[in-house]
Amino acid sequence: MYDLAIIGTGPGGYEAIMTALRMGLKIAVIEKDKLGGNCLNRACIPTKYFRTGAHLVEKLSVTNEYGIVLGDYKLDYTKAWEGKEKAIGFLRRSLEQLLKAKKTPVYKGVGKIIDKNKIEITKSDGTKQTIEAKYILIATGSLPVNVGNIKIDGENVLSTEDYMDKLKQLPQKVLVVGGGVAGCELGYIMNRYGTQVFIVELMDRLLPSPIISTEISRYLHRKFKKLGIQTYLKTTLENYSILDTGIHCKLSNGEELTVDKILLSVGRKPNTDIDTIGIEKDERGFIKVNSYMQTNYENMYACGDVVNSPMLAHVASYEARLAVNNMFNEKKEKADYSLVPWAIFTAFEIAHIGLNEEQAKSQGIETVSGYYPYTYNEKAVDEHEPEGFVRLVFEKGSQEVIGASIVGIGASEIIHEIAFAIKDRYTAKDLHEFIYFHPSLSEIFIYATYDIVVGKLFR
Amino acid sequence: MYDLAIIGTGPGGYEAIMTALRMGLKIAVIEKDKLGGNCLNRACIPTKYFRTGAHLVEKLSVTNEYGIVLGDYKLDYTKAWEGKEKAIGFLRRSLEQLLKAKKTPVYKGVGKIIDKNKIEITKSDGTKQTIEAKYILIATGSLPVNVGNIKIDGENVLSTEDYMDKLKQLPQKVLVVGGGVAGCELGYIMNRYGTQVFIVELMDRLLPSPIISTEISRYLHRKFKKLGIQTYLKTTLENYSILDTGIHCKLSNGEELTVDKILLSVGRKPNTDIDTIGIEKDERGFIKVNSYMQTNYENMYACGDVVNSPMLAHVASYEARLAVNNMFNEKKEKADYSLVPWAIFTAFEIAHIGLNEEQAKSQGIETVSGYYPYTYNEKAVDEHEPEGFVRLVFEKGSQEVIGASIVGIGASEIIHEIAFAIKDRYTAKDLHEFIYFHPSLSEIFIYATYDIVVGKLFR
Repeated sequence: MYDLAIIGTGPGGYEAIMTALRMGLKIAVIEKDKLGGNCLNRACIPTKYFRTGAHLVEKLSVTNEYGIVLGDYKLDYTKAWEGKEKAIGFLRRSLEQLLKAKKTPVYKGVGKIIDKNKIEITKSDGTKQTIEAKYILIATGSLPVNVGNIKIDGENVLSTEDYMDKLKQLPQKVLVVGGGVAGCELGYIMNRYGTQVFIVELMDRLLPSPIISTEISRYLHRKFKKLGIQTYLKTTLENYSILDTGIHCKLSNGEELTVDKILLSVGRKPNTDIDTIGIEKDERGFIKVNSYMQTNYENMYACGDVVNSPMLAHVASYEARLAVNNMFNEKKEKADYSLVPWAIFTAFEIAHIGLNEEQAKSQGIETVSGYYPYTYNEKAVDEHEPEGFVRLVFEKGSQEVIGASIVGIGASEIIHEIAFAIKDRYTAKDLHEFIYFHPSLSEIFIYATYDIVVGKLFR
Repeated sequence: MYDLAIIGTGPGGYEAIMTALRMGLKIAVIEKDKLGGNCLNRACIPTKYFRTGAHLVEKLSVTNEYGIVLGDYKLDYTKAWEGKEKAIGFLRRSLEQLLKAKKTPVYKGVGKIIDKNKIEITKSDGTKQTIEAKYILIATGSLPVNVGNIKIDGENVLSTEDYMDKLKQLPQKVLVVGGGVAGCELGYIMNRYGTQVFIVELMDRLLPSPIISTEISRYLHRKFKKLGIQTYLKTTLENYSILDTGIHCKLSNGEELTVDKILLSVGRKPNTDIDTIGIEKDERGFIKVNSYMQTNYENMYACGDVVNSPMLAHVASYEARLAVNNMFNEKKEKADYSLVPWAIFTAFEIAHIGLNEEQAKSQGIETVSGYYPYTYNEKAVDEHEPEGFVRLVFEKGSQEVIGASIVGIGASEIIHEIAFAIKDRYTAKDLHEFIYFHPSLSEIFIYATYDIVVGKLFR
């Protein structure tokens, strides 16, 4: 009998493994596919890999300014794809080697919970095996959804997983259905590697999430225009036909396009086909957990995309650490989602924490905000990265910081400073008076608080 | 009569201008040279500019991994120099334009305080002018020092200022005297642009400062070796002669070198030739100020390199904000240097805050430390930047974080998270349980605290 069986090795399962091994537990790992799950193999990590490349392509236009005189160069996406495989392969092997060194068995197959302490694993050859564990962590993640009459076929109509697994060469023209995070990230990557990219988005803006302010959506939209990414808002793909000459697409606005591939990135659903014993799910199909991450079975916990919390890798990891702690430690801790950072790597690095002005308003909170563009930040100038801005949001009365949106290089790192500041109820004055390294991007917080703390330059 | 006269427009003067203008004060600015002072024109900003270029040169070796197939390229340092001029010129003009828009006079010349409220300005043509101000801020910065018999001549033996102002083409061989921050930063830059670099350092390690742990010095030294930078520790330049064939150098270890230039980077002294009225100075020549930044004259304040505090641009800015506040606001605030971040941009980005283990030990503080290499950080892997590590230092009993050293990309930004954490007395557990974006460099703090908070992987 294992102390703990972990089903799935994405960011949730990975973190549970790390925590459990360090606690000295005897664990079993069940994985139906590649170690590292979707995040490592087909989402977060390869996306950021390609995005590094895409941004490097942009960077080539300024190397001259640094005395690096390039001759001709060419873009070979297949090499990038191979580089991506190497990078994620290295990380995957690190995990494999650790599990081997710790003599932790990895059961390759689909796990199904058939009893309180029993998991039946079905291997790809159909053979079955049953293991027993005191505790079970369900970290099975999510699956892409189809939408309307658009059916993912892995050949002409791709999911983001297909994109990562199969697309070693980019199409000349692609229609991205869905202008959310994945659509904007992959759309940008393909654009920089030479593909003509069209995006259709049902809503009236890119990144249509309450988390993302309309200010950011507009800023990104302008940049996409400049880069030649064509965006159709309030538009859907009505139907398409696959012809020899390409995929003929009819949009809801009446326009017609012919492309080589369709990339569907409209959302994901929890992967909950996991048990035969009645683990409770909510009306949207997520596994129901209490704030300790515990399901209706007291020895079974769940984390990540399979439960109803923000579908983010770091939320999964956080929940996994919490779940394993709550299984084996006296002191139980509740999940707290008040400070979850978001970051998006598209034409800009975009990050968010806490509330934006629109969210605050909808909650009846009066705000003041501090804005500063990257334009005059010396570090951004030194790196020829003058695009972007920060918008800090403060509760009007107390002037305590309650949120931040950052667009521009380093956004996904410096956002954590504001996370710390929100947690510790820093005021605009506290942020203004902090000593940041010069020159650093973080100094932008001094300048974004000047108006509020000292006064405006121009009244 | 002006409300405030500011002498010097480096990071101290600049920040005083920003604060004073926003407070609606009538100010005068005195600058003997270019607006922006040394930091903008000859130190922090151009150094980071060239460092961006130098690092980009390194980056070219991995573009293939991202499918960017480069042909031949050449390095043309003169173009980098021109790019640097453009970047700092843009920032200088921004300040000029702001001062113009705010109708703030800039007196070009050397200011000398000749009475409590009077400053005499001597222009380059020798003409003099006197202005009056209620308050005076002395932000005159520092000057490079000569050492022993090595005399800066601006031609063969260069100061770091000469390097920035004059050196449009790099020498083939250079001897850098002083392996401190400036020596390691400029040595790396020249090395990447093709110069053969030798460094002599009196002490037994590179970056010989209590702030920098010996662990970091060793790590950097190994990298310098790999890059072909030759370092002589516990060594001085005994003498040199300037011949037609180059500068013949004799080192204290008996070795002889012939180089094209010597770069002297051994330290700086306060620039205090500023008054005729007896502003008090300390035994090392710094202007004496109380913790409100006030000199022995109650209407005169000083900040930056001219006072005895860490010689860092951001310390100058911080002191300037404080000084202007203390001049005009009811509520006076004392300077607090307990949380000053350091960062160095050499072959690695290196950052430090609080105490390292050696410093803590010398203060009798028992510590535990958490270490994690960049090797397995997914963001670092995605960016092909696997070199570096973090070392977090905790007080043993409370497990509160008291310091951090970070080596690797992003170090100069994510160090601020630990600054916030030290200020708010976060424990290892607090840092471990925080939700960081995945994948981000900041996640390294989760992994560097695992040993302490949960347990070791291998005992």
